[in-house]
Order: sequence, then C-alpha cells, then structure tokens
Amino acid sequence: MPELRRDPITGRWVIISVERARRPSDFVRVPVTGPTKRFCPFCEGNEAKTPPEITAFRPSGGEANRSGWTLRVVPNKFPALRVEGGLDRFGEGLYDRMNGVGAHEVIIESPTHELFLSECSEKAVEDLFWAFRERIVDLSRDARMRYIVCFKNHGELGGATLEHTHSQIIGLPIVPKRVQEEMEGARRYYDFRERCIFCDMIRQELDSGARLILETDQFVALAPYAPRFPFETWVLPRQHMSHYEATSPQIIHNLAWVMRTLLRRIDKVLEKPSYNFVIHTAPVRDAASDSYHWHIEIIPRLTKIAGFEWCTGFYINPTPPEEAARFLRDAGMV
Amino acid sequence: MPELRRDPITGRWVIISVERARRPSDFVRVPVTGPTKRFCPFCEGNEAKTPPEITAFRPSGGEANRSGWTLRVVPNKFPALRVEGGLDRFGEGLYDRMNGVGAHEVIIESPTHELFLSECSEKAVEDLFWAFRERIVDLSRDARMRYIVCFKNHGELGGATLEHTHSQIIGLPIVPKRVQEEMEGARRYYDFRERCIFCDMIRQELDSGARLILETDQFVALAPYAPRFPFETWVLPRQHMSHYEATSPQIIHNLAWVMRTLLRRIDKVLEKPSYNFVIHTAPVRDAASDSYHWHIEIIPRLTKIAGFEWCTGFYINPTPPEEAARFLRDAGMV
Repeated sequence: MPELRRDPITGRWVIISVERARRPSDFVRVPVTGPTKRFCPFCEGNEAKTPPEITAFRPSGGEANRSGWTLRVVPNKFPALRVEGGLDRFGEGLYDRMNGVGAHEVIIESPTHELFLSECSEKAVEDLFWAFRERIVDLSRDARMRYIVCFKNHGELGGATLEHTHSQIIGLPIVPKRVQEEMEGARRYYDFRERCIFCDMIRQELDSGARLILETDQFVALAPYAPRFPFETWVLPRQHMSHYEATSPQIIHNLAWVMRTLLRRIDKVLEKPSYNFVIHTAPVRDAASDSYHWHIEIIPRLTKIAGFEWCTGFYINPTPPEEAARFLRDAGMV
Repeated sequence: MPELRRDPITGRWVIISVERARRPSDFVRVPVTGPTKRFCPFCEGNEAKTPPEITAFRPSGGEANRSGWTLRVVPNKFPALRVEGGLDRFGEGLYDRMNGVGAHEVIIESPTHELFLSECSEKAVEDLFWAFRERIVDLSRDARMRYIVCFKNHGELGGATLEHTHSQIIGLPIVPKRVQEEMEGARRYYDFRERCIFCDMIRQELDSGARLILETDQFVALAPYAPRFPFETWVLPRQHMSHYEATSPQIIHNLAWVMRTLLRRIDKVLEKPSYNFVIHTAPVRDAASDSYHWHIEIIPRLTKIAGFEWCTGFYINPTPPEEAARFLRDAGMV
C-alpha cells in the first residue's frame, strides 16, 4: 500500500511508493559529464570576460580582476534583476507590478575548470559558504532587499548553463511565497507548543535514526519524513538560529565538511547526478526568530516533474526516505 | 528593466524578462517525435494487456475489453494510489501519515497509435472532456475522495511514459496544497469585493486584449498576467461555475473546439512541444462556490526548472505573456 505523508512545516502531502521502492539503480542516470574544451569566462586568466568582480578571495594578495584568486564573486552577466532604479510599485486594474530591482551574482568556486564542487578542497567549500554569508551581510545593507536566495545549480538537468563550478545569489525586493509558507508553518507550530519545529524534528530524527544520514557536533543531515523528491537531503544546524548570516566561522567550517561529504556520497550512490541546493534562511529584514531555523535542502535531479505535481503541489516520490537515508549512510562505511 | 508581476489569485510574484524577451525560436525545441513500432498496450486489439476497463465509448456497441471503442478508461497498471482499504490516519511523533487510498485511472483518447490529441477529431477531444466529467461524477460517489485531478502529460519532457495519446485522473483523499491556496486566494478577493476574481479577470482581459488568445461564446483563452512559464495558457469559461463536473454538454462541446484549436496553435508556434494541462476545479465535497471558477491551465515544456524556482516558488519567465499571446493569436490568422 502506498503511503500519504504530510510535511509538518508546510502541511504539504506527498505520496511515497513504499512497495516498489526505487533504488539508485532504478533511475535513468544522466551523470554530469566531464569538462569540454570550450572557452570559459570563469577560468583563471579570463577575468576580463566577466563583469568586474564584487569580491574575491586572494590568499597571496594580488590585484582585483587578475589571476591569483581562489574564489570570485561577479555580477551575473545576464541578470534576472537589476540593482539600479526604484521599485515603482503600481497596479494595473486587478494586477500588481513593480520594477525588477534586485541583485543577481555568481560565485565562481574554484579557478580550476575541471573540478566539481565535491572534488574541491574542504577549504574551497568553506570559502563558498563563507562567501554566501558575506554577500548576504553586504546585500542586506540595501534597504530594498527583503530576501536573499543562495543556491547552486549543478549539471544541465539542474539548470546550470556553464559547467565551471559556480553558485548563485539573488537578492529580491519581496519574500518568495514558499519562504513565507515555511515561516508561517513554523510559526503556527511555535504558537501551539512554544518550541521550534526544526529543533523538535532534529530530536525525533536522532532518536529514531531511520532517516539519519550523518551527524557532527554542529549538524544533522537527514532524509525528511515527507520528501518531494527521491534522495532529497536536509542539513540542519543543531544550534537554533533563524538567519544563516548569523552563523559563526566555526559552524561554517563544520558545514563545509558536512556538505562536501554529502555531495561526495551523492556522487557515489547516484553516479554524479545533476543537483540543486538552496539555503533556507529567514528574510534579512526580520528580527531573529524563535520559530524559524535556517537549513540547506539538497535535491538530486533524478525524476521529471509532470503536470500533476506542478499544478497541485502534490508530489509522488518513488523512493521512501528511509531507503534513501540508508544508501547515503552506507556510502560512508567504506 | 525586468518586471516583477504578482498573480492576483495566489499572490505569487514572478520575474518577467521584458528586455530580452525570448521568442519561440529562442528556445531549444525538442519536438515530440512520431510513433515508434514498439508494442503498445493502449492500441486497439491489445485490450487484454490493460487492467479491465472502467468505462469505454463504443458508438457502434460491442463487448467490453474488445475492439470497437473510440475512448477507453482503464485503471493505471502501476497506480500511485489504490482504491482498496481504509484511510487509517495516524501520527508518528511530529509527523502525519495515512494509507495511500485513492484512484488512478488512464483515459486512452484514441484507438489509433499515430495521433497526437491535437490531431484527433473534434469529437474525440469532446469525448475526452466528457469522460473527465463522467469520471469525476462517478469517483466522487466514494466518500473518501476529496479532490479529483484530471490532467494530461504529453511527450517525454511532459512526463508521459507511453506515447499513445492518453490523459490521467487521480482521486485523492486530501485537497492538494496548491488547490487550497488558489481557493483561499479567490475567497479573500470575494470577501473584499463580493465578486469572483476570475470573472473580473475575464472582463479586464477582454477590455485590454493584450493577453487574449481567442474567445468564443462560452470561453476565453489568455496568457495570464503573471505566468510562471513561457506560453502558459489559461482557458476560462465565461459562465461562472466552481465545479467542472457541473458543466453542460453544450459547454463541453465548445471547450473541445477551444482546446483542440489551442493545442494545434501551440504545435505550430512551438514545433510540437511536450506539454501538460490540468483542469483546476473545486474539491468534489464542497458546495458550489461564488468565489472559485473552474478553468484549465496549459503549460508547454520549454524551460528547465532550476533550484531557485523549486525552493522559492518564485519563477523567472523569459517570455512576457503579451508576446506569447500575440504569437498564439497570430497563429490563427492563416
């Protein structure tokens, strides 16, 4: 019998096929292929081919927009939103519109074209998560910014258009709907129990162990109870904190180890799939919240999303999270 | 300058790239290919290869599960949900679960393997929309059913696993989250203005004409003001009605013409893309509602959904709806 499971935060129901559970080998795997020889604007030496850098890490010093960097943040050459101009909100009869004011930046995670993020050094991964933090802090000085999304699209199926390893940051003048829903769901639980639902989830998952993938002093990685997608993985800090940008350097150091380890296990179990990850964090203008808890969601791209899922927000997941967690747990046992 | 536009029903903001608007020829087009020679369980003569039929249209009479049908409804051989058993709701600590009770049916739209729905006769399309109505009426006799989704996945990118033209019906023991949101958004507008937001939208769109694709006595087809996807198309009945299953035979007759015409224009303008369509209708156990208005949403599959969109519910659409509407309007001018 299939199961219907409900995500306790958003209230979203999903169908989990427990009978004919799909194992990693049952998916049509489309590994992200190695590098091609085409010209790449993100490679060291081609700094002039991107817009001038916003910031960069140069451990041995050196000039901006020249070689010698280990990580580089540049404006997106084809931005979805633009920094210039006022918001100019206005109505058109029934409808609402505003100017597309915002920020769209790219983090180039390594000067080397050939590496996936999972193959970069732990230091490089730490630098990425530190750069996310720095950019949130800097962008939120602009009073027009309400929410800042930090995310990575890896591989063609993940929506990456350039193969050189990179992440993206989008600063928005609104709080996206899914973020609002997550905040509200967590708030409702807090109003009822005066506890953070994410903290409660961490406790229950550590007790049960069935969906646990790995744990460190600072983090827990797990397959959520009602995942939309096979092998969906959440990374939660043990310490309650609503805003990612409030994270300490020690915690980011540990996060880098956790993320690198998870991405390597995903590469191993699912044969280098395309994936996405997104930092879920509280809106930058909100005060620290007792009910919301920042975390990261990783989604390997293994299935197609059909009309049914899109239009109803109701997902059919062919892999129970207990199975997915077991594969990703066992991948660390070598 | 890009624009941010807000869907007045759900409150979802989208980014519309108005500067570098993508025209049909700018998309990487992956036409749905013609038929292969493989064995097909949906073809006439292979009736024994599907589960026994639930209903079928046999204009010249004849036995069930034999040749001679024009449309056939069968249970999905690999159902996401099962009709047997009780719901058995229970909790697991924080979480909620129930048995996967529901219905999952397939409508085979033609005995002929070679035809797309857009190439079938108008009568065949009318039969499909009549079959949706009949199945909703029949399935809602089962008190466990709360919502019935009628949809079509066309082409591999649309999530279709068999190429023989077919649609699907899923009966659910819950109301999906996106449906609830749409109902609530329409309700809030009604509480404020005592008018149906969809009726108001039809009026405004007919006045403006900018996003109008076609109109008949009974229907209006338009590109919505804040579409998530390029060439997203909505079909709305002019007459206010919350439940699709309350539609008269005359209206369904007209709907068939509208849908067939739109799918043919989409095939022409976008070179036979994969697509999805879904009937948006009120939950079957709800009374007729003054605030909700059934309609159909058609989504050609032209873009990949990246991590950003998934996790925020915030979409970047490279084609303004005014452009999309113009292409689909002009396609009828030959």
